Amino acid sequence: MDLNSTSYVIDTLYMIFSMTLIILMVPGFAMLEAGIVRTKNVTTVLTINTLIYAIASIMFLLVGYNIAFGELANDSVSKWAILLFQMAFVGKVVNIMSGGISERAKVIPISIFTLIMSGFIYPLVVNITWGTNFLKDTFLELNLYDLAGSTVIHSTGGWALLAAILIIGARKGRYVKNTIRVIPASNIPLVTLGAFLLWIGWFGFNGGSVGSISSKEGANAVALTILNTNTSGLAGAIMVALLMYIKYKRLDITMILNGALGGLVSVTAAPDLYNMYEPILIGFIGGALVVFGVSFFDRLRLDDPVGALSVHLLNGIWGTLAVGIFASDGNDITLLGQVKGIIVIGIFAFCVSYVVLYLINKVITLRAHNDEEMQGLDVEECGLEAYPEFKRAF
Amino acid sequence: MDLNSTSYVIDTLYMIFSMTLIILMVPGFAMLEAGIVRTKNVTTVLTINTLIYAIASIMFLLVGYNIAFGELANDSVSKWAILLFQMAFVGKVVNIMSGGISERAKVIPISIFTLIMSGFIYPLVVNITWGTNFLKDTFLELNLYDLAGSTVIHSTGGWALLAAILIIGARKGRYVKNTIRVIPASNIPLVTLGAFLLWIGWFGFNGGSVGSISSKEGANAVALTILNTNTSGLAGAIMVALLMYIKYKRLDITMILNGALGGLVSVTAAPDLYNMYEPILIGFIGGALVVFGVSFFDRLRLDDPVGALSVHLLNGIWGTLAVGIFASDGNDITLLGQVKGIIVIGIFAFCVSYVVLYLINKVITLRAHNDEEMQGLDVEECGLEAYPEFKRAF
Amino acid sequence: MDLNSTSYVIDTLYMIFSMTLIILMVPGFAMLEAGIVRTKNVTTVLTINTLIYAIASIMFLLVGYNIAFGELANDSVSKWAILLFQMAFVGKVVNIMSGGISERAKVIPISIFTLIMSGFIYPLVVNITWGTNFLKDTFLELNLYDLAGSTVIHSTGGWALLAAILIIGARKGRYVKNTIRVIPASNIPLVTLGAFLLWIGWFGFNGGSVGSISSKEGANAVALTILNTNTSGLAGAIMVALLMYIKYKRLDITMILNGALGGLVSVTAAPDLYNMYEPILIGFIGGALVVFGVSFFDRLRLDDPVGALSVHLLNGIWGTLAVGIFASDGNDITLLGQVKGIIVIGIFAFCVSYVVLYLINKVITLRAHNDEEMQGLDVEECGLEAYPEFKRAF
Repeated sequence: MDLNSTSYVIDTLYMIFSMTLIILMVPGFAMLEAGIVRTKNVTTVLTINTLIYAIASIMFLLVGYNIAFGELANDSVSKWAILLFQMAFVGKVVNIMSGGISERAKVIPISIFTLIMSGFIYPLVVNITWGTNFLKDTFLELNLYDLAGSTVIHSTGGWALLAAILIIGARKGRYVKNTIRVIPASNIPLVTLGAFLLWIGWFGFNGGSVGSISSKEGANAVALTILNTNTSGLAGAIMVALLMYIKYKRLDITMILNGALGGLVSVTAAPDLYNMYEPILIGFIGGALVVFGVSFFDRLRLDDPVGALSVHLLNGIWGTLAVGIFASDGNDITLLGQVKGIIVIGIFAFCVSYVVLYLINKVITLRAHNDEEMQGLDVEECGLEAYPEFKRAF
Repeated sequence: MDLNSTSYVIDTLYMIFSMTLIILMVPGFAMLEAGIVRTKNVTTVLTINTLIYAIASIMFLLVGYNIAFGELANDSVSKWAILLFQMAFVGKVVNIMSGGISERAKVIPISIFTLIMSGFIYPLVVNITWGTNFLKDTFLELNLYDLAGSTVIHSTGGWALLAAILIIGARKGRYVKNTIRVIPASNIPLVTLGAFLLWIGWFGFNGGSVGSISSKEGANAVALTILNTNTSGLAGAIMVALLMYIKYKRLDITMILNGALGGLVSVTAAPDLYNMYEPILIGFIGGALVVFGVSFFDRLRLDDPVGALSVHLLNGIWGTLAVGIFASDGNDITLLGQVKGIIVIGIFAFCVSYVVLYLINKVITLRAHNDEEMQGLDVEECGLEAYPEFKRAF
Repeated sequence: MDLNSTSYVIDTLYMIFSMTLIILMVPGFAMLEAGIVRTKNVTTVLTINTLIYAIASIMFLLVGYNIAFGELANDSVSKWAILLFQMAFVGKVVNIMSGGISERAKVIPISIFTLIMSGFIYPLVVNITWGTNFLKDTFLELNLYDLAGSTVIHSTGGWALLAAILIIGARKGRYVKNTIRVIPASNIPLVTLGAFLLWIGWFGFNGGSVGSISSKEGANAVALTILNTNTSGLAGAIMVALLMYIKYKRLDITMILNGALGGLVSVTAAPDLYNMYEPILIGFIGGALVVFGVSFFDRLRLDDPVGALSVHLLNGIWGTLAVGIFASDGNDITLLGQVKGIIVIGIFAFCVSYVVLYLINKVITLRAHNDEEMQGLDVEECGLEAYPEFKRAF
């Protein structure tokens, strides 16, 4: 064993470790969403999450990776580890979108969208940001700093979700005249479990995005990244708890956990660049944005059962801006560059997703029939109830 | 720190990492099985899973390791890490067997079988395959390639299960005259959570079985192994989803997840030897075998609530054959050697398990009384219901 | 990459790995407690667990670390990794305490206690044991061996819990005249999942406490530590299963899992110093102490829904004594030194916690109103039921 291969080995091991944490996000999203939707739609949500992981990963392996990064190369770290790490990201973009159209969207159209998103849309976004950027020499050179994807992952998923909600509409009975009906989460322990699995997965997501741990600088950057990631999540949770307590004297745990996720999204663009205190402020704002966003989107009649527009889209934007505000000293990061990145990718992700979803909806209908929706999607879509032995309270 | 100890340290760290992932399979199996059985048997299943982990691990520490591998040695990696890694495997073999006789088998006889399986039967299987093979100089030299146990773990557990089902029989009311009564899973989120914990645990199981990550070749082999492991699981899930949709227009998530597990079992014999595309085919066949197997074993009146015969036995065999088909170039792997390994271990595991279970059944009865089974095993075996506050729908 | 930075990198990676496992204890505690309490208090318990993690971590980052260890230093491992690792410990101390006053303690007073415990009380305990010990030159030099906190973490949390129970009293209806009413756990799969997440987290807790893996000796010490940690947990589970079966012919899984946790606590003071067989005995005694403790504390009318006094306080003491009994050869560990450590920290932790909780209780009342308690704390504290769609059996 020589020093050169030591570095190769350690970085490969570190990529594998990070990838494993990210895969915890698969049950993470699945449990979170299964806990939030009504019992009659739980099996469908779990099926969608499983198929997204399967389809997105295989598509990225077969097609997407090449579009994003070109050929698999093998120099400072095992190419298989890089592929594993990048494959672990893909499903997340679709998860963000599928969660927000839960309880009315069918499995097959989401699966088809997953094919296209993970094979083409997301890889193109990656191409012009983290990847080979085939447009670079012509006209599109983005000067975007986005370490682990506040924009590339979270906003992209969020824009796709916005397109999907505009096409599919709200759940029946959610907005009736001037009232907004609150639909309570059906299983709070699952929501909590899911949120913490996501949180832990984030350590792999952001930490692994640093790329190399095999030098003192690398090791410090990785550790600081994970520290800051965690801190921003903590701050998001605390801010929402404070706001909830001040406003309602009641601590809504689903909101607090979404606050944590909002904090995690908002630090994701540059956890390696902040000092150890800045993520507290970034996460506080991230948490506040979740509280603001949830009622904002409700007022716009954009029905999003899991709050993904607030957590991922708003905080993805905020997180990308925050880099320009807090971390633009002594490097070539500019607030303008960040804004340009947000806008270019936003327009691309939203428009392409809209067109694709519009076409899918034309051909096979994205939305379940009304009586299927009333009965719950599980029976018709999956032929299985989630909790068949438990008597329903209503 | 010198280069020699660097390699020692990294491989020790990697063994510990892999072992930790494998231990995630303990709650993995527990949640999967707790979600599949009826609520009245959930506590019993969880108790069995916990005791299997406890008894199997201690027995392997005290007796089994020595039978399998001889004395604990200490050269290229910490002997404690090797022991930890190997100990993590043992319980899985019994888990495979206990899951398939759920809802009628009692805790104590399974615990006694666990003692014998983990102290003697499994260590002997390991001895003649991965271990010291004390029969080698006399007559039994197996030329079996089985990296992480398609045969050694999964088929062995599967053969023990087949013996157990033949002895214990089907659940009451499962096969009445010519009809097969479907007993639905009671908690789909738990099934999903369990399956994904198993999936993630597999990265440690197969990846760790490569043995050393501390060279470029080692790092590449580990990363390729984990990539291929994952891919085959993805392919298994997709194949079952397609078959389910074509046959029934409904996506049965319990079958899809079993398809993933079938894909994972089937790649397990040689994930380090396949190129990155072969596992797609291997997993597709693995998934198809699950769909075929579940109705095949039902036609034979072999009642297996979790589908373990299809997932572990059929796919264990298929996975071991696949090495001979796809990976026998430029090495001394032969299809015949693989077949011989499958047969020798199959006969040994089945016969010894049958005799041991037969004797246990003679002395203390493997099966719960009829009215205990009707009432659910939880009350009599554990004195605790799993969900005492939830009203049953039936 | 040079050899010096190799060691730095590997130890940083190892700290991050260990920290990640410890964070699994956050959902671990949350699921365990959510499964044990009645459905009407589940959301409150989850909210408390989430807020403890958020508040305790931030407080330790801002205040506590400095009190415990002085300035963040940076020599053999990334200071950010050390901070991350130490931050991961803090919440656990409060978790131990909050679990035992479940079903009657309110969120806000526990949150305030969390601030003080994680910012001041726990850091002072760490200061005089693992930390800089500002009292060393005056009068308090403890000669306590406590690798990963049998006393520093578990007893400290346990003493705080004892103080809290004395102040808050038992749940309504728990002790009526001469009868002790058993309140069954509401969700056994969650209890099991939580216990195993804690178990796995312990590998990081104890293994990481060895401090360095980057030498042959370090690697062996870490692997032995994790092996022994696991073994003691296994032994604790087996002992309780035996005792339960002998006494009641029924295997109470909640007790068996608490036995495992008791075994884990009791080995925690010196898993690096025992040979591979001693943890079996230590864990056996740990398990027996849980069985003894649970009825002992019930006879004293100390109502502790999760059994934390037995698991953490009794076994924390036993584990600290065990070092003096089994591991005091060829080093300067003495049984007397261990006893002194137990007493000094016990008095400090109990008294300060008592005073702080007493004052909090005076100002804002620790305990929910009687009718809030009858109705369940979830409605008033959180405004959310944990399982709103599930009909209650009673």
